[in-house]
Parts: sequence; structure tokens; C-alpha cells
Amino acid sequence: MLKLCRQYLNWIQNSVFEGEITEVKLKELKFRASDIMKMETDSLIIFHTRQEKWLEKEVVGREKSTLDNIL
Amino acid sequence: MLKLCRQYLNWIQNSVFEGEITEVKLKELKFRASDIMKMETDSLIIFHTRQEKWLEKEVVGREKSTLDNIL
Repeated sequence: MLKLCRQYLNWIQNSVFEGEITEVKLKELKFRASDIMKMETDSLIIFHTRQEKWLEKEVVGREKSTLDNIL
Repeated sequence: MLKLCRQYLNWIQNSVFEGEITEVKLKELKFRASDIMKMETDSLIIFHTRQEKWLEKEVVGREKSTLDNIL
């Protein structure tokens, strides 16, 4: 799942990913995720925002370095 | 950390919480979290949105029942 999500988004923490994605790519990601999820127990929660400025991000503690995204 | 965050927000998945919180309560939560976090390695990421309608939520797979929030 981690591997799959990282193909579409940036991994920010544990099971949390963030990024800009097109409707088509999101549909593809959901389709591929459903394939590897146990639908009765697992869940994938998607928060959409249409404009980046509507969402403010604040980090307390260690900020993930860009290096982490490459590893 | 889970216990602390659940005093302020609803637990939605793994290390993800959601909810409405006042500025004062958020400050308190950040303060209390810093106290138990290893600041060099751990991170707490906060996504703010001023209006709920700016954020759309979509769940694929199992939707956490309200019961889970009580357990």
C-alpha cells in the first residue's frame, strides 16, 4: 500500500500521504488500492481540497526531509 | 499520544485524528504533545481548514463506526 501510494503522492507520515493528483489518477489509485485492501477491515480516507490555500499545514517536531521521500 | 489526542479530537485511522478545536485547545494539545514527543524524530502534522465545506472527505473500504470512537 505504501509503495502504491508513493507512486501517486508524497509520503508525509506513517500511513499519511499528501499531494496534488488529477481526478483520473485518483480514480486509478482508488481502484488499485481496493485491489490490495481488505474492504471489510481496511480503510482509505481521502481528504480533498480544491485550493491549496484552503488548507494550512503546521508541523510540530521533526519535519520530514526531502531525502525521506527518495528513500 | 493516542490517548492525548483522543481527548481533543476524533480518532479516524492509525495516527490520524480529526475534529473541530478552538485555538486555545489546539495550543494546549500541541504543548502537551511536545511534552511526550521526541522532537528530533517524531512529528505532529496539523492540517487546518477554516471552513468544513472546504474539505471533502471520502472513505474507501470500511468506515469506522461510532462505536470505535467510544472503545
